[in-house]
Amino acid sequence: MAKTLYMWFHETGEQTMKAEAEVMPSDYSFKQTHLIGLAGYSADDIRFVLQQASYFREVLNRPVPKLPTLRDKTIVNLFYENSTRTRLSFELAQKRMGADVVNFSSSSSSVKKGESLKDTIRNIESMKIDMVVVRHESPGVPQFLRRCVNASIINAGDGAHEHPTQALLDIFSMKQSVGNIKGLKVVIIGDILHSRVVRSNIIGLIKLGAEVVVCGPKTMIPLFVQEMGVRVSHNLEECLAWCNVAMALRIQLERQQGGLFPSLREYHETFGITMKHLERYPDFTVMHPGPINRGVELDNDVADSDRAIILDQVTNGLAVRMAVLYLLSGRRDLG
Amino acid sequence: MAKTLYMWFHETGEQTMKAEAEVMPSDYSFKQTHLIGLAGYSADDIRFVLQQASYFREVLNRPVPKLPTLRDKTIVNLFYENSTRTRLSFELAQKRMGADVVNFSSSSSSVKKGESLKDTIRNIESMKIDMVVVRHESPGVPQFLRRCVNASIINAGDGAHEHPTQALLDIFSMKQSVGNIKGLKVVIIGDILHSRVVRSNIIGLIKLGAEVVVCGPKTMIPLFVQEMGVRVSHNLEECLAWCNVAMALRIQLERQQGGLFPSLREYHETFGITMKHLERYPDFTVMHPGPINRGVELDNDVADSDRAIILDQVTNGLAVRMAVLYLLSGRRDLG
Amino acid sequence: MAKTLYMWFHETGEQTMKAEAEVMPSDYSFKQTHLIGLAGYSADDIRFVLQQASYFREVLNRPVPKLPTLRDKTIVNLFYENSTRTRLSFELAQKRMGADVVNFSSSSSSVKKGESLKDTIRNIESMKIDMVVVRHESPGVPQFLRRCVNASIINAGDGAHEHPTQALLDIFSMKQSVGNIKGLKVVIIGDILHSRVVRSNIIGLIKLGAEVVVCGPKTMIPLFVQEMGVRVSHNLEECLAWCNVAMALRIQLERQQGGLFPSLREYHETFGITMKHLERYPDFTVMHPGPINRGVELDNDVADSDRAIILDQVTNGLAVRMAVLYLLSGRRDLG
Repeated sequence: MAKTLYMWFHETGEQTMKAEAEVMPSDYSFKQTHLIGLAGYSADDIRFVLQQASYFREVLNRPVPKLPTLRDKTIVNLFYENSTRTRLSFELAQKRMGADVVNFSSSSSSVKKGESLKDTIRNIESMKIDMVVVRHESPGVPQFLRRCVNASIINAGDGAHEHPTQALLDIFSMKQSVGNIKGLKVVIIGDILHSRVVRSNIIGLIKLGAEVVVCGPKTMIPLFVQEMGVRVSHNLEECLAWCNVAMALRIQLERQQGGLFPSLREYHETFGITMKHLERYPDFTVMHPGPINRGVELDNDVADSDRAIILDQVTNGLAVRMAVLYLLSGRRDLG
Repeated sequence: MAKTLYMWFHETGEQTMKAEAEVMPSDYSFKQTHLIGLAGYSADDIRFVLQQASYFREVLNRPVPKLPTLRDKTIVNLFYENSTRTRLSFELAQKRMGADVVNFSSSSSSVKKGESLKDTIRNIESMKIDMVVVRHESPGVPQFLRRCVNASIINAGDGAHEHPTQALLDIFSMKQSVGNIKGLKVVIIGDILHSRVVRSNIIGLIKLGAEVVVCGPKTMIPLFVQEMGVRVSHNLEECLAWCNVAMALRIQLERQQGGLFPSLREYHETFGITMKHLERYPDFTVMHPGPINRGVELDNDVADSDRAIILDQVTNGLAVRMAVLYLLSGRRDLG
Repeated sequence: MAKTLYMWFHETGEQTMKAEAEVMPSDYSFKQTHLIGLAGYSADDIRFVLQQASYFREVLNRPVPKLPTLRDKTIVNLFYENSTRTRLSFELAQKRMGADVVNFSSSSSSVKKGESLKDTIRNIESMKIDMVVVRHESPGVPQFLRRCVNASIINAGDGAHEHPTQALLDIFSMKQSVGNIKGLKVVIIGDILHSRVVRSNIIGLIKLGAEVVVCGPKTMIPLFVQEMGVRVSHNLEECLAWCNVAMALRIQLERQQGGLFPSLREYHETFGITMKHLERYPDFTVMHPGPINRGVELDNDVADSDRAIILDQVTNGLAVRMAVLYLLSGRRDLG
């Protein structure tokens, strides 16, 4: 397997050289009104969101990183799952655009009273809400909500299904730090099976023409993942030798008890990125969606090295979310 | 009993025909500075709030449903009991009127440190707060707070006492969808004993000249409820044949363990509104304060039928709360 | 001991007569960019913050108590410990100055996912945050955060270390209600050992030339506290006879189980301030940082008497926090 994989890498690697066409088709217009997943976005849709995001990324460098274009909008953040950085990132994006923001979390909610999701969302809609950002542990919830209401639905993570704004910020960060996505060689390392971040990234990267390899313990690689257009490897060394970007995923500590990997130490031995890797393969860039388990997915020094763009990912997340909110609010093309 | 009730219904039913005088007395002025309950509001006060609410209801239909008339006000939402829709509705009303809003919930509070309610509220007032919206599991808390501080107090539900903004939005919705309140025939169905929603509705509806019947299991009807001016029935069929509006109350599932009703299924058999009821009695309108237990108080199809105005109630709640906030802030008559 | 203490009190008491020089040195400029503790602030820094606070205190008396000088700033309130009044006070100060505010509490956070504090704060900083207000149960956290990020850090209480804005508001309140701090005789009563409020107050008061006595059970007085420049007493009566200001500290009820005092009743007998004290010693002013255990640290009537300035402390807290936010945002001297 390892040999074959390498060959495939080698053969297709040349595509990286080709310049990526960045010009949008002249007849293109962004017609999406929701963001359920990247599966429903065309390559042009994704490129267009990223273009707009680069404009907001500049706004964030200004002394006053605000652009109150959503002053007339009301947004509800509907978080049925705990979250820090995603919720904070959305909330900051919304406030800097001047929207009225209301937070709703399952802990203080009618969920406990047994109200159906449909009734909850239709009630919220009746309060004249423009957009709903939803995170839920069950895959398909954002899709279901979209059928219930007229408000724009933005998926902030649904079970192991999709987490599209995370993938958009990851792809934006690759473009910004590494270069054209077409032909880019990306390895995604870790628990591929349970990750919505991976699914959205694979879908987006493949649409934009990247080559993607997923790398992890056999227990954590979904069957038939190849049908998504990726290759599978269990050999980290080989992947790092090949790739332009190595994206390490957070390992959920509770998986150990589920028998998916023997111990954190052994996981680190086999799939952790170390300083030795950085020295041995001087070209790849390190990414991680956070929160990092330092010493597990990444060595401490790797996380803090200038090969890692983990904090850029966070800043870019803000820009990407501003762009998504802007476009879904019915605004078109900033510039 | 059933016969007598019907007779009474029939006799007084004619009042519905009389046109309701909507003109306010020329010397009327709104002098309330708090909203503790509808018991403390005159019929004219209630009519005046509803008039103002109809203005805000129009605002909510605008492309930008905002009216920043409370830009100079600070409001604290003091929720000692969990709540979704009421808290969300108040918070949205406040934000759309431009107020500074701070939320305080018992879970993250000094309540746990054993601070007295009086000290908590006087501390909050010392931070130069204009209005306090309070929900508490003990009846009388808003009344008590009113005596401690100068800020305007708005009761968002206190134990089984009152929930005045809910009743105002219910009455507003009846007016909007069914017609004049004077002579309107309203049946309220369910757990009358434990419901603050019922108490406020009865007080408000009787003041405005509606006829009210309460209908539920004997274990859930308070003794002497007739002294509030209502009639009691245990026969849903008869009530639905008579009424213009049927308001079903949420059944608290924990009451079953308290022995107040045998099972949800039996409750539904006797007091649930079904599609057959809608067909048999084509005139009454269905209301519910939410959250609905679908299949218990209302059949699924009843809740979603065009005879139900449940989502209008939610939108109207926003308008009513905007009006209350506006009037209690010292503003007068939008015109 | 009692005799000696009294003598010392008597001898130094005359300093109170001297007028305090309020004019700032002509070459003074405020150079702080964080507020970790009063230990890092010079006497002039403290005086300057208090001067600015008096300006904001006037703003709070205006019909519209707002001054939107932080419209371009984003502030995160990072509360790892429950808090009502401190969090509310900071949040109100921020909103009245027009800042964008995002709250982050440990209950809904990555903390549970085991993310390091350093990664959390650096992530937050990557979202282009200007200031972070942090409360944490571990002493040293604000200091640690300061080394990790460029945003301004404001300590809202770290373990038993410091709570500088509380001390600033206490000193501001003394100045406002009692007079010059230089020579002022202050007794702080209660659990000196576990209190961050005491530590910050002692540091600030001593820097400004006050005389401070700490008074409490021997189990609650830290060894070597005298090295901070204070005297120790275990005799409340004597302290109240001497002081201009008596600041009672909240007793943590859980300390009783730790064996630090026998019972609330006995604590009250020995260290509680009663109406008899107020009558016997007509000059001292009563302070308390809240929340009060009524009947323990203070008699009910003492807390509500006009000798107590407890609610003024709360209002002044808002003014002091506005001043701190203003100055640390890079603004200088309101004039």
